[in-house]
Amino acid sequence: MVKSNPPPVYRVEFQPGAKKCLLAINSSLLDAAQQAGIPLASGCGGVGTCGQCRVIIIEGNVSDPSENEKEILSAGELDRGIRLACQARIQGDVAVRVPVSSLITGQRLQTESDVKITKGDPPVRTVAVHLPKPGREDSRSDLSRLAAGLTGVDQEKIHAGLPGIRQLSTMAREYNWNFTTLLHGNEIIGILPPGAKHAGMAIDLGTTKIAAGLYDLSSGEQLAAGGELNPQIAYGEDIISRMAYVIQHPGGDKTLSHSVREVLDTLLGDLTAQEGISRDQVAEICVVGNTAMIHLFLELPVRPLATSPFAASILSAMDVKAQDAGLTAAPGAYVHILPGIGGFVGADHVAMVLASHLDHSPHISLGIDIGTNTEIFLTHKERNFFQSVSCASGPAFEGVHISCGMRAAPGAIESVKLSSLDPVIKTIDNVPAVGVCGSGLIDITAELLRLHVIDHRGRFDRDHDLVRKGNKEFEFLLVPADLSGTKRDLVITQEDINQIQLAKGAVRAGLDIILESAGIEPTAVKEVIIAGAFGTFLNIQNAVRTGLLPVFPNAIFRQVGNAALAGAAQSLVSKQFRKRARKIAEKTHHLELTTYPDFSLRFAYGMLFPGDES
Amino acid sequence: MVKSNPPPVYRVEFQPGAKKCLLAINSSLLDAAQQAGIPLASGCGGVGTCGQCRVIIIEGNVSDPSENEKEILSAGELDRGIRLACQARIQGDVAVRVPVSSLITGQRLQTESDVKITKGDPPVRTVAVHLPKPGREDSRSDLSRLAAGLTGVDQEKIHAGLPGIRQLSTMAREYNWNFTTLLHGNEIIGILPPGAKHAGMAIDLGTTKIAAGLYDLSSGEQLAAGGELNPQIAYGEDIISRMAYVIQHPGGDKTLSHSVREVLDTLLGDLTAQEGISRDQVAEICVVGNTAMIHLFLELPVRPLATSPFAASILSAMDVKAQDAGLTAAPGAYVHILPGIGGFVGADHVAMVLASHLDHSPHISLGIDIGTNTEIFLTHKERNFFQSVSCASGPAFEGVHISCGMRAAPGAIESVKLSSLDPVIKTIDNVPAVGVCGSGLIDITAELLRLHVIDHRGRFDRDHDLVRKGNKEFEFLLVPADLSGTKRDLVITQEDINQIQLAKGAVRAGLDIILESAGIEPTAVKEVIIAGAFGTFLNIQNAVRTGLLPVFPNAIFRQVGNAALAGAAQSLVSKQFRKRARKIAEKTHHLELTTYPDFSLRFAYGMLFPGDES
Repeated sequence: MVKSNPPPVYRVEFQPGAKKCLLAINSSLLDAAQQAGIPLASGCGGVGTCGQCRVIIIEGNVSDPSENEKEILSAGELDRGIRLACQARIQGDVAVRVPVSSLITGQRLQTESDVKITKGDPPVRTVAVHLPKPGREDSRSDLSRLAAGLTGVDQEKIHAGLPGIRQLSTMAREYNWNFTTLLHGNEIIGILPPGAKHAGMAIDLGTTKIAAGLYDLSSGEQLAAGGELNPQIAYGEDIISRMAYVIQHPGGDKTLSHSVREVLDTLLGDLTAQEGISRDQVAEICVVGNTAMIHLFLELPVRPLATSPFAASILSAMDVKAQDAGLTAAPGAYVHILPGIGGFVGADHVAMVLASHLDHSPHISLGIDIGTNTEIFLTHKERNFFQSVSCASGPAFEGVHISCGMRAAPGAIESVKLSSLDPVIKTIDNVPAVGVCGSGLIDITAELLRLHVIDHRGRFDRDHDLVRKGNKEFEFLLVPADLSGTKRDLVITQEDINQIQLAKGAVRAGLDIILESAGIEPTAVKEVIIAGAFGTFLNIQNAVRTGLLPVFPNAIFRQVGNAALAGAAQSLVSKQFRKRARKIAEKTHHLELTTYPDFSLRFAYGMLFPGDES
Repeated sequence: MVKSNPPPVYRVEFQPGAKKCLLAINSSLLDAAQQAGIPLASGCGGVGTCGQCRVIIIEGNVSDPSENEKEILSAGELDRGIRLACQARIQGDVAVRVPVSSLITGQRLQTESDVKITKGDPPVRTVAVHLPKPGREDSRSDLSRLAAGLTGVDQEKIHAGLPGIRQLSTMAREYNWNFTTLLHGNEIIGILPPGAKHAGMAIDLGTTKIAAGLYDLSSGEQLAAGGELNPQIAYGEDIISRMAYVIQHPGGDKTLSHSVREVLDTLLGDLTAQEGISRDQVAEICVVGNTAMIHLFLELPVRPLATSPFAASILSAMDVKAQDAGLTAAPGAYVHILPGIGGFVGADHVAMVLASHLDHSPHISLGIDIGTNTEIFLTHKERNFFQSVSCASGPAFEGVHISCGMRAAPGAIESVKLSSLDPVIKTIDNVPAVGVCGSGLIDITAELLRLHVIDHRGRFDRDHDLVRKGNKEFEFLLVPADLSGTKRDLVITQEDINQIQLAKGAVRAGLDIILESAGIEPTAVKEVIIAGAFGTFLNIQNAVRTGLLPVFPNAIFRQVGNAALAGAAQSLVSKQFRKRARKIAEKTHHLELTTYPDFSLRFAYGMLFPGDES
């Protein structure tokens, strides 16, 4: 009797970041990357034709180059160990290096918001001066000379840091004592040619994505916008793994901080270049992000933040010299960090509240920013309170741990309507579908519920026409191989549905608890702000149908896009908004979900789908 | 007829600093170093026995190794081009590298002063706290937790920079939330173990010498003191050559700044180690120096300062993070730079006035700090004015350009009394004489005048018994070779006298002009403060006899030692003294000597010696 043994399992390690995973022999390195959470680009969906998923084998055995690889890669590349991750199959323990150029970059990095940035009272102003030149009879220091030439200031208080003074002494002569002074309060932070405008950069430092905008500091007008993946992904997909990396690796704090600073500084260079202005014209930078990201950016200790009782080093607003944060702007420019509320409710949440004007809401309003971590804000005008919760919703809505999940990139299915005929599918950029992103997953789930393909517990009806038995489990065929951009079937499996339930259950539990703790019925809610990239494309009706959101019969919904970035931009150009941000941070009470009575039960309840409504 | 040609002359270049000089063939490299102003150590006075004057021949020809060199240097050293400067004689153009270890370091670096540092209101205070630990019910940020635990502060205004916050989060847990907080105003600049004292460092950043003291910030008590040569000497003996070096060499500003920062940081380490305290306990640093030195230290542009109309970048007091100045102290510690008066009258002068309390003088007082640059301060209580001048007295009183001149180091003749018998000579540390330092030069000059060896124009009386014909000119034999530590005659030449005349002429012209411009007769001066190392050992009577000083018949003289360092120390421990320093800087009118009517004539007059008075 011959009994087949299970196939051998090998270890794959990805560099940089030392992310490891275990896979069966003959699994592709692309599978391994997906399992390890490395966002490898794969335009063709893993059929070896796009050449995007190049990796370098550091050591270990993989299968011989395929015909596709021989066609796409040069002999030299193959010699250097370069392979296509989708083609190379593991034959033993393998160590692989992932070049940055092979990471997904084409994904939708939302920088837009429907929030209008109002012109404000910027923290930096420009003052044009025309100064007398130094002479034998007038050998005042450069700083005194400039101070005397500034009108409308307390000359006694005018000062400058070393980089500002250096630029003053050098450039004042270059501009023949006729120039524009950048003043941050009473501090001279830079010198510009006469008439030059001053700009600022707002940054939303997300765990996964970084969004940034360049703004005219006088008018508040957006001049340019851009985004990048957070390069710290190489050291952990979520904040917890990144903090673990820092705690376990001496110098890890510097590594992670450096990686994100480098990307931010490049973004600053790109945006100013786009707009044709110099880095010296960037007079202020405003950053928002969750508390852990801010700590990782500023190289603050994360051990206390990562372990109970999760105390942050600092939550209040702070001003750091751009130079000390690795950003090259006007010599004395500051980075303003908005205040956070708690270890798990950060400055990005405050910025969202600020941009949505939830702090000025005249009635009962909710703000929801759905992401890997979902923050919910509740305000009740009459009772004068601000409350927030944070839910660990996980990365399912980012497409992670979903069999055909992907982030919102070209080819991602973002909305779905099932009919008796073929499904009506909309992909980002209208190219052949290669996966499903968050909003698409909610649509599919809602449709599967409507058609009774799944029941309210999320179980597939095995006898349903639309259900088939897949490799391991029951599944729904969304796009057949011949129509998909990957040339493979795109399916939704039982496990996918379970992952979606976990994510939406966490959000729903947060919503139920924040309302219940305040004694507010959903009927009393007058306004629901949905922020964030996922929220922008979310079909609200389907969100309610899946139970992600309860029914808010009297509420107006506003999907505001990247409100965190908008809040950062608003605080960039207005000191008044910074005051409001401080007030929000001080006034908001953070409700700790996990210690709320019966939290687990509520979470379990939240995972269920609403009863039959069709 | 054979006529002898003059011997060939070759160029010697010293690195680092590219200092060059021309010498006749067979001159020693030690002679060259002296001519070039390189302070090469030479304990044996150049007879090849002490081995201190090691240099490295980069290129060019010198004489073969002497027997002494073969004894002192290893074969390996000789192979690497290492030679004794006193033994190697030039045979052509030579380039030489001088290791730092071969520079004079044993010289007298005055850190003492008779000025008592009064206990003050230090800019940094310590606050002991015992804080509740973070818990599930109390997850405030570390900064908020500490702010709430500080008594007697405006908690709203408490803040900290990144390095301070980093230390707080790490060390608060290490000390179990029971520690001492260092507060600079409302800024948390560091965390110390419970009960630790806080100290500060005062620095007098001289062109030639750096003097530093470590002080208890609470009591004002000096804990330790030390000094070093200013390493920038390698790039120019005087400030003008150093500024020229910076202007001519891209990156020269960084090089010079780095060199002095490194020495200061080492001094800080040495002084704290001496006292058995940690660098973290150094909570404040106060620096004085001439305006150019401050610019070179802070890496500020020097071109405007080096060229007419000599405008400084900044003259007002400033606070710079110690970290940004290359000094490792408490994480958020500041370096306070005292204000200066003008391009040539710097913070060291203000500190001297402050330490001598000249700003509070109840009558007419003078303050004189004699050095390579001599500053003079005049105050008239009734007329409520402060006046200062700066004289380019040159380095003769430092022993430079004097045939047997040397700085105040062991073996330097510091006082001389000539009698009909042998001269009575006192050397520093009472070791055999190897040269003459400034105070000795004044004594000798006064004695030579008294004995009519030189006349009031400074000319040697060729017929005088004490005058002999030297190699090139007439000279006075001070110490014969058999009594000198160098085994060579120590002589005072006609050229030496001329150099002394130039130096004292500049100082005297400054004194005459500052008094005349104010309409004050020397008889009206009630007090004369003599500051600085040279001034400490100066025989006042001889200073008057040589005409360096006029006769002040009604004045009390106070030789206060290193008053600049004392002023820095006083400002280190007292905010009140910083206010006084600002007032001095603002109130003092700087009189530009070179534009004063008949300056050259007065200078020439000042060079003369007073008529026969013996």
